[in-house]
Amino acid sequence: MNLYVINFKGQTTVEELMNPEKGSPGAAEDMEAAESFIQQAMEIILQEAVKKATNVKEKVCEWRSPEQLKELLDLELKDTGESESKILQCCRDTIRYSVKTGHPRFFNQLFAGMEPHSMVASFITEAIKTSLYTYEMAPVFTLIEDALLKTMMKLIGWEEGGDGLFNPGGSMSNMYAVNLARYRYCPDFKEIGIYASPRLVMLTSQEGHYSLAKAAALLGFGTKNVYVGAVPFFVNATAGTTVLGAFDPIDEIADICEKHNLWLHVDACWGGGALVSKKHRHLLKGIQRVNSVAWNLHKMLMATLQCSAFLVRDKSCLLQRCHCAGASYLFQQDKFYDVSYDTGDKSVQCSRKPDAFKFWLVWKAVGTRELEYRVDRALALARYLAQEIKKREGFRLVIEPEFANVCFWYIPPSLRNLPESPELWKKLHTVAPAVKERMMKSGSMMIGYQKHGVKPNFFRMVVISPQVSRQDLDFVLDEIHSLGKDL
Amino acid sequence: MNLYVINFKGQTTVEELMNPEKGSPGAAEDMEAAESFIQQAMEIILQEAVKKATNVKEKVCEWRSPEQLKELLDLELKDTGESESKILQCCRDTIRYSVKTGHPRFFNQLFAGMEPHSMVASFITEAIKTSLYTYEMAPVFTLIEDALLKTMMKLIGWEEGGDGLFNPGGSMSNMYAVNLARYRYCPDFKEIGIYASPRLVMLTSQEGHYSLAKAAALLGFGTKNVYVGAVPFFVNATAGTTVLGAFDPIDEIADICEKHNLWLHVDACWGGGALVSKKHRHLLKGIQRVNSVAWNLHKMLMATLQCSAFLVRDKSCLLQRCHCAGASYLFQQDKFYDVSYDTGDKSVQCSRKPDAFKFWLVWKAVGTRELEYRVDRALALARYLAQEIKKREGFRLVIEPEFANVCFWYIPPSLRNLPESPELWKKLHTVAPAVKERMMKSGSMMIGYQKHGVKPNFFRMVVISPQVSRQDLDFVLDEIHSLGKDL
Repeated sequence: MNLYVINFKGQTTVEELMNPEKGSPGAAEDMEAAESFIQQAMEIILQEAVKKATNVKEKVCEWRSPEQLKELLDLELKDTGESESKILQCCRDTIRYSVKTGHPRFFNQLFAGMEPHSMVASFITEAIKTSLYTYEMAPVFTLIEDALLKTMMKLIGWEEGGDGLFNPGGSMSNMYAVNLARYRYCPDFKEIGIYASPRLVMLTSQEGHYSLAKAAALLGFGTKNVYVGAVPFFVNATAGTTVLGAFDPIDEIADICEKHNLWLHVDACWGGGALVSKKHRHLLKGIQRVNSVAWNLHKMLMATLQCSAFLVRDKSCLLQRCHCAGASYLFQQDKFYDVSYDTGDKSVQCSRKPDAFKFWLVWKAVGTRELEYRVDRALALARYLAQEIKKREGFRLVIEPEFANVCFWYIPPSLRNLPESPELWKKLHTVAPAVKERMMKSGSMMIGYQKHGVKPNFFRMVVISPQVSRQDLDFVLDEIHSLGKDL
Repeated sequence: MNLYVINFKGQTTVEELMNPEKGSPGAAEDMEAAESFIQQAMEIILQEAVKKATNVKEKVCEWRSPEQLKELLDLELKDTGESESKILQCCRDTIRYSVKTGHPRFFNQLFAGMEPHSMVASFITEAIKTSLYTYEMAPVFTLIEDALLKTMMKLIGWEEGGDGLFNPGGSMSNMYAVNLARYRYCPDFKEIGIYASPRLVMLTSQEGHYSLAKAAALLGFGTKNVYVGAVPFFVNATAGTTVLGAFDPIDEIADICEKHNLWLHVDACWGGGALVSKKHRHLLKGIQRVNSVAWNLHKMLMATLQCSAFLVRDKSCLLQRCHCAGASYLFQQDKFYDVSYDTGDKSVQCSRKPDAFKFWLVWKAVGTRELEYRVDRALALARYLAQEIKKREGFRLVIEPEFANVCFWYIPPSLRNLPESPELWKKLHTVAPAVKERMMKSGSMMIGYQKHGVKPNFFRMVVISPQVSRQDLDFVLDEIHSLGKDL
C-alpha cells in the first residue's frame, strides 16, 4: 500500500475541497510517508548505484536485449498506482539493468568513474529543483556559476574575464559559439534572419565534433556550408577530438583568424581538462587568444552529467544581446536588487539547471592540485596502456596517443600471419564488433569501437577515472584476447 | 581531513604509477571514504532539502543580497581541497540559502511542490550518470522514454502513435517543432541553408512563449518573421499561456492549418497537464489533430526539473532525418542489436539525460487517476482563490482564470478611493514590486508579478502542488494585505 498516494486521495475529494466546511488534506502524514519512501530509496541508491556499481568484482552491465528487458520490467503505466514495495523494486531493477558508468572497467565514452562530491551536488540540485533564470530563484547557484566560470577563465588565460553559461551538453555550447559569431558578424540577423546575407561559411576540421554540423543545420546555414563557401565567419578548432584525442594547433589558427577577423571557437569539451595540468596544458597553447571555448567538466574532470560550460571572452554583453527576449514575467527591470545577477536571458533555454554546482563542489573539496593529479594520472595510465599494446602480440596502435584516447586493433591469431591486404582489413573490420558483442553479454567491461576514414573498426579505449588501476588496463587487454582469440 | 582525497593522492604518484614495481592506489579505502561522505550528505539532503524545505513553518527563502551571500559563502576555489566537514557545511549552506520550491507557499513559477517519486528518480539518474545516445549505454532508460512517450501520445489522441524525445526544457522542445516544420517544408535546407528560400514566417499569438522568438533568432529566420511575412510554414498555438494561463482554440486553428498545409505545433508546456483530467481536457480540444506538441511534465505534473517532452505525430522518421549526423563512434550500423533503439541521432544534443524516468516513476507509483486528482485539485484551488479575491476588499482579478494562473491586483487602502485614472494605474504599478521585496525579505512566501500590455504590475499566483491547502491560499491574501497595507 502506498501511503503517500492513499493520503493524498483519501483526505479530500475535489468537491469536498470546495466546500468551506471541510478541511484540507493531511499534509503532515503525507510528508512522513514521502520522507520514509525517499529514505528507503536513498539506501537502495547507496547500496546498488554507489557501492555495488563501482565494485570491480561486479559486472559493468547486465546485458538484455530490448525484448528481454521489456519482459523483465513492467513498463506499462496504469490508471492506479503501484505499491511502495513494487516501486522500490522498480528502482532496484532500473539500477541493475543500467550500465555502470562508474565501474572501473567502463571505458566506452568520454566520461567514466564516480566522483562522490559531484554526485552529492547533483542530488542537492535535484532536491532543490530550481532554475537559473533569476537571482531571486537561484541566489546560491547564480553566484556559484559565476565563481566557477571565472576560475575556468583564469585557467584559459583570459586575465580580464569574459562571460559564459553552463549548458545541457557540449553540443549546445558549440552551438552558442556559432550563434554568437553570427551575431557579431551582423547583429541584424537576429531580427531579419539570414535570407539577405551572403552564404556564410563555418570552418572546422574533418575531425571536429558532429555538433558543428548539427548547429549548421539548426541555425539555417546548412551542413554543406561547414567546409567550403563564400564568407567564412566562424572557425572551430578542436582540443581533443572524439575518436583520436587529437589537438588542433590553436596558436597557428589564431594567427590566421586574427588577421581575417574571424571568430575562433575552441571545442575543448573533451581536451579542456588538460588546462588544470602544468604538464599537459601545452596541448591547448594559445587558447587565451580565442573568442569562445566549450568545456565539458563532465568528461575528463568527472562531474556528473551534464556539466558543460560555454565561455566567451567578449565583455560587451554579446551573450545577453544575442539571446535576450526580455520576458516581462521573469526579467522585470523594477526589481529591488541588481538585475545583472539575473542570467536567464543570456540563454536560449528558459529554465536552465544549476549544473555549475556539480563541479564547484568537487573543486572546492579536492582543490586544483588534486584535479591536476587526476588528469596527470589518467594520461599516464593511457601512456602505460599504449606501451603494453606495443609489447603484446596481436595488438596494434592506430596512432600514438596525444591524450587519453588509446586507439588500437586486436588481431586474432587466425589473422596474424596474413599479408597486409584489403582482404585482411575487411576481416579485421568484423573483429571489434564481434568482441564488443561478447563483452556486453559477459558484462566484464565496456569499450567503444568505430571505423575511421578507410581504417577498419578499432577499439577506442578512454582512460579517465582515478579509480582505474594498471591492473584494470592489463585486464582489458587479457580479456579482449580471451574474448576474441577464436575469431 | 578529507580521506577520499588523501588516499587518492597519498598512495601513488604519477611517476610511481609508471614504475611497474609499484602498486595501484587503494581503491577500496577510497570507496569507503566516498560512501561515508555520500551517506552523510544524503542525511543532510533528507533533513534540510526534504523535511525542512517542505515544512510550512519554515521560510520559503532566506533572502540575502548578492554581496551578503558572497560573504556568507566561501566561493573561492583553491589549489588545495577543503575538509569533509567544511564541504558538508557548504552543502547545508547551499540548501539553506536556496529558494525552497517544494514549500507549500512557493507560487512564483510554473513549477512547485515536492514529488517524492520524481525526486528519487532524479537521484537515480544522477547516480547512474548515463546518456541516451544508444541502447547499449542506456537500455532501461531508452525503453522507459519510449513507454512514457507512447502513453503521452495516447492522452493526446494520436491513436497510431508518432515519435518524440525528452529535451532540456520546453524552449528546446518548441525549437524542435520549428526545425521539423522547416525541414518538412524543404528538406534541402538542412544541407544548403535557408539563403535561397523565400522569407519564411512563423505564426503565434502575442501571448505565445518567448521561446518561439528565441527559436526564430537561433534558427536564422529572425524574430521579425515570427508575426508577419511572406510564406507561413509554422503555426504555434499555446495551451496555457505563461502569464494568464489562456488556451488558444486548437480545433479552429487546425481547420486553417489543414487547409493551407501549415505545420501546427501546440506549446502545451504548461497546459498539457490538463490532458490527464476528464474534467479539464476540453481546454485542449483538437490536440490530436496537430503535428507536434511540447509538454513539460515538470510543470503542472510536478516532475523534477527538467522533464520536457517533444512529441511529433509524423511516422516517417522526420525527427531522425531532420537531425541525424550519423557519428560513427556512437551509431555503428554493424551492432549486434536492433539499432532503431539508438535514439541519440534524433536529438540536436549529443549527450542527453534520461529525464523520462523522472516522470515514469511518478506515473508508475501513483497511476493516472491520482495524476487526474492532482490536476483537478490544483484547478479547484485556483478557483477557490479567485472566489476569495472577488470577496475581499482591496483585491481585484485581472481576468477570470481559465487554468491554474490567478492574476490579480492588490490595492492598498491609500489607493482604494481614488478614481480610475492613469494616475491610479501608475501608483498601482509600484505596489506589486514593493510587496514582492518585503515578501522576499521576510521569506514568508513567493509569488511572481509582472506588467502585461498596458496593465500595470499584478501578481500571478500559480497553484500546482497538492501539498497546498486552502489555508495556504488564505494566508497568501492575508499576508499580501499585511505586507502592503501601508503603501
